[in-house]
Amino acid sequence: MGKIGIIGMGHVGSDVAYTLCREKLTNHLVLIDPLKEKVLAEKLELEDSMVGWDYSIKIETQNYASLQDAEIVVISVGSQNVDNENRNSELIDNVQAVRESIPQVIASGFKGIFVVISNPCDVITKLVQEVSGFPYERVIGTGTLLDTYRLKRVVGQYLEVSPQDVSGYVLGEHGENQFVPWSIVSVREKAMLQEIQLSSDVLYELKEETRLGGWRIHAGKGWTSYGIASACSRLIQAIQKNENRVYPTSSYDEVEGLYIGWPTVIGHEGVISRLPLNLLKEEKEAYQASAKEIRSVYDRI
Amino acid sequence: MGKIGIIGMGHVGSDVAYTLCREKLTNHLVLIDPLKEKVLAEKLELEDSMVGWDYSIKIETQNYASLQDAEIVVISVGSQNVDNENRNSELIDNVQAVRESIPQVIASGFKGIFVVISNPCDVITKLVQEVSGFPYERVIGTGTLLDTYRLKRVVGQYLEVSPQDVSGYVLGEHGENQFVPWSIVSVREKAMLQEIQLSSDVLYELKEETRLGGWRIHAGKGWTSYGIASACSRLIQAIQKNENRVYPTSSYDEVEGLYIGWPTVIGHEGVISRLPLNLLKEEKEAYQASAKEIRSVYDRI
Amino acid sequence: MGKIGIIGMGHVGSDVAYTLCREKLTNHLVLIDPLKEKVLAEKLELEDSMVGWDYSIKIETQNYASLQDAEIVVISVGSQNVDNENRNSELIDNVQAVRESIPQVIASGFKGIFVVISNPCDVITKLVQEVSGFPYERVIGTGTLLDTYRLKRVVGQYLEVSPQDVSGYVLGEHGENQFVPWSIVSVREKAMLQEIQLSSDVLYELKEETRLGGWRIHAGKGWTSYGIASACSRLIQAIQKNENRVYPTSSYDEVEGLYIGWPTVIGHEGVISRLPLNLLKEEKEAYQASAKEIRSVYDRI
Amino acid sequence: MGKIGIIGMGHVGSDVAYTLCREKLTNHLVLIDPLKEKVLAEKLELEDSMVGWDYSIKIETQNYASLQDAEIVVISVGSQNVDNENRNSELIDNVQAVRESIPQVIASGFKGIFVVISNPCDVITKLVQEVSGFPYERVIGTGTLLDTYRLKRVVGQYLEVSPQDVSGYVLGEHGENQFVPWSIVSVREKAMLQEIQLSSDVLYELKEETRLGGWRIHAGKGWTSYGIASACSRLIQAIQKNENRVYPTSSYDEVEGLYIGWPTVIGHEGVISRLPLNLLKEEKEAYQASAKEIRSVYDRI
Repeated sequence: MGKIGIIGMGHVGSDVAYTLCREKLTNHLVLIDPLKEKVLAEKLELEDSMVGWDYSIKIETQNYASLQDAEIVVISVGSQNVDNENRNSELIDNVQAVRESIPQVIASGFKGIFVVISNPCDVITKLVQEVSGFPYERVIGTGTLLDTYRLKRVVGQYLEVSPQDVSGYVLGEHGENQFVPWSIVSVREKAMLQEIQLSSDVLYELKEETRLGGWRIHAGKGWTSYGIASACSRLIQAIQKNENRVYPTSSYDEVEGLYIGWPTVIGHEGVISRLPLNLLKEEKEAYQASAKEIRSVYDRI
Repeated sequence: MGKIGIIGMGHVGSDVAYTLCREKLTNHLVLIDPLKEKVLAEKLELEDSMVGWDYSIKIETQNYASLQDAEIVVISVGSQNVDNENRNSELIDNVQAVRESIPQVIASGFKGIFVVISNPCDVITKLVQEVSGFPYERVIGTGTLLDTYRLKRVVGQYLEVSPQDVSGYVLGEHGENQFVPWSIVSVREKAMLQEIQLSSDVLYELKEETRLGGWRIHAGKGWTSYGIASACSRLIQAIQKNENRVYPTSSYDEVEGLYIGWPTVIGHEGVISRLPLNLLKEEKEAYQASAKEIRSVYDRI
Repeated sequence: MGKIGIIGMGHVGSDVAYTLCREKLTNHLVLIDPLKEKVLAEKLELEDSMVGWDYSIKIETQNYASLQDAEIVVISVGSQNVDNENRNSELIDNVQAVRESIPQVIASGFKGIFVVISNPCDVITKLVQEVSGFPYERVIGTGTLLDTYRLKRVVGQYLEVSPQDVSGYVLGEHGENQFVPWSIVSVREKAMLQEIQLSSDVLYELKEETRLGGWRIHAGKGWTSYGIASACSRLIQAIQKNENRVYPTSSYDEVEGLYIGWPTVIGHEGVISRLPLNLLKEEKEAYQASAKEIRSVYDRI
Repeated sequence: MGKIGIIGMGHVGSDVAYTLCREKLTNHLVLIDPLKEKVLAEKLELEDSMVGWDYSIKIETQNYASLQDAEIVVISVGSQNVDNENRNSELIDNVQAVRESIPQVIASGFKGIFVVISNPCDVITKLVQEVSGFPYERVIGTGTLLDTYRLKRVVGQYLEVSPQDVSGYVLGEHGENQFVPWSIVSVREKAMLQEIQLSSDVLYELKEETRLGGWRIHAGKGWTSYGIASACSRLIQAIQKNENRVYPTSSYDEVEGLYIGWPTVIGHEGVISRLPLNLLKEEKEAYQASAKEIRSVYDRI
């Protein structure tokens, strides 16, 4: 129930703040953004939103020093500047914002967990780890968590079952090179490949529909926020409650030497472990292709 | 059962939908907006947002016919087109949107409660009542409910008490001509006028800060949404749970012949009654000035 | 968010009522029990419990007629009289209570869903269906839902993972003859039998610890209630929100001609379907042994 | 972070634990009671209750040492042994339990807030303060908070308004000598004495109905728990969120030299202040009569 900082109060950061307030997942928010009036406006909105619901949460703005005893700092910088082409297009702005903000977080004496949303998520998460000098397990990217929720929605709608009855993950890059390891997807106790036996065309369509989820939303409303805000808040609850439970997040792969979406066990200390999985040969290749793409983006910064 | 329609899916309507989902105040949402892609995007976002939180709510789009058995229809049309000058500037667009959408709601056979957010709220609420032909008590404007929350925030911060320890209302027009009847404001069992005895300058400042709340937020982020979404959702809960409790809303004043902000008792049938209040002479005059302004705007449509 | 009736306000019925209030899963409760003072006491307690949490829910007592438009009626009769030996010992009292109360529910014109908790659950659920004359799918027993939660707790603690990372079910009788079909249990993407490979002794211990869960609680506090109240409330939410999702409940097996714990798809109309499962030979035999036991108890009434 | 201890796991302590779990007001519970099997049973129940609701909270039992970094310790010892005659009858057992348990809490290094429920509440709260040696403001009794909720319920039902539309308090002893200062009670902006003008007989009846609330519940179910568990949990949220808001609790009166029910401002550090009130002469006398009764009970220990 501790203090949570949010760096970057665009659509995403603001909706994270609103969600944390509504779910009472924090007693104290610290909101930070270069746009001073924007942050103050969000503070007023959040305070107004609680009056009639009979509770209140302390909200500070622009105060890096207060992050000293924060439990979690969310990095959602730059989320306003996305364009439709490719999440990597935000790269330069977000790299710059991370290089400016993270040292100020560190200077506060912050010792908690970084949860990174900013895109390209896998690259920015690595950058946050490097700039902060934090141990790998204390820096987590939301990665393919939201993509996984979309997979469950898409497959659930196709098979006319609840999304929660779909088990599985989207893995790899949070972006164009994400992939679905169908060999570990199952629906209502039936393995997708052996028992449900959809055609490869259908599987391809389901994967594409999942990947395109963000773009469809983006095209319709100009940004995405409720989905990622909910995913990020769920991850925050997992950290707070020391859940020791599997979430697909962007975590550090020692072999590849980068952050990339993979099922991880999450607890109060951050990433407890990465799940060992036996993927099919082509799934492993898709993972490596994802890694290669992340590396090539990373090399540009 | 628990079906709620939202007409107008701009910032406000969308945040109402997100808040209703998060608070599980509905089992079935019907979202309607002229921008088809926008509504679909919001539906996808809302669905994504629930997957990881272990519940689901049915979401339909653009289906007026489904409102037949809705409990409540929220009117939040036009909230995108606001400019900084005056809430009345939205008048023409919103009048047009109401005249187009309400007959379609009525055609569905809808028999529930209209909750009107669109600005200028008091005028649009009257228009919704007229176009729908509904009894007065089944059409409610959010009116000065959010302004009242802002008053509690502003006074609470000034006196360093919790906003919930401030009792009182903003009344009259949801707009520039709102007023605070200080004679019925109290803070921690002390009457504002007799016992707390702030100077009239300070009272004026507090009232102005309250009134300017929306503009400050607007200037900082370009729109307002979390506050009004929370206020609207609280009102919806009051209706659903038949609370029989006082909320300052835009309700019908038979003497003035218009809708205007006043403390009302809210229950499952809508407005149960308007609270009898003994206001000071100048407060009554402020109310009439508000009414006059609302009438003058109404006469323009 | 509709009206919910609870017949039987012992520890279990009362904790169901409290849980439904806290989760705001109803707007109107109807509480019924032969002990008039007990029911009034619970009504006062529940009302007191909401005052400080800023909401209210209508609570009626002893009014069968009001069930006419209830969404769900929970049958928790007799839960006070359990002894330590065997859930079947409650049989006679509970049969009698069902035969007295269900006709009064039916006389109200109730057309919703029965959710049956009273033990022996599978037998009483069948009895409720017969006495009510309701279609099978509109009568659901909580059956092995709570046992399944206990299995997840027990296996989770043994393997040091979150209970939610354990997938699987307890099936068959909600009682001594329940069984765990290990062939469909998996933990963090690993099949229990093929990949985790616990010894059969350990599997036996885990099953026994699950089965004994209720007795341990009973021995320690004299009754069980929070667990079953939570399970029942979760099932109620699944019905209200038309989740179309799998829960192990006591549902009607046409071949066996009785109610027995099995994974069922639950929605607004009750049981949508029973999940087709390929169990191992010995698991099928355990199911039939369960069915036989349920039948032998049923034959005694 | 967010760790809460509960000493005394009878009906009240257990329902406090269940309420804290359901409201997610803690990430870590420490449950302590002389009855080892009872505590283990409650731990299992609470764990079972969370599995299906998709979250988990760490629960420890009997571990005083773990209270070292707890935020709050609830004292609910002895709540099982109440009889119908008088709350003071529990005195001897509860004094003994406090003298045994508090030194063990202190030995852990606990530096948080004590919230005392055990009866006679005002006396036991003073005892907890003395035995612990804590500053007065870090020991709070729930006192007349629940009585205040009952007053709102009783007056609300009499006047057919929402309990939340009733403003006012029950003060003095949490027991037979509690009183209602009608001069500061108001309903929907009307002062009870000047404007609503009920007869003194009716006021007496309302006060008696309030005072008898606990006895009616006790007579009907054998104990009280949901009401006090909700009141206690609300107070805990006020402490956690540093609400700076008025709650009628048992706090230290320096003049009288004892703990007694009075409106207090509650925040993260406990009691921030006692509200200055201008009571009527007879109300002041009722307060002193309450204080005298509390003192006479205290003098017996």
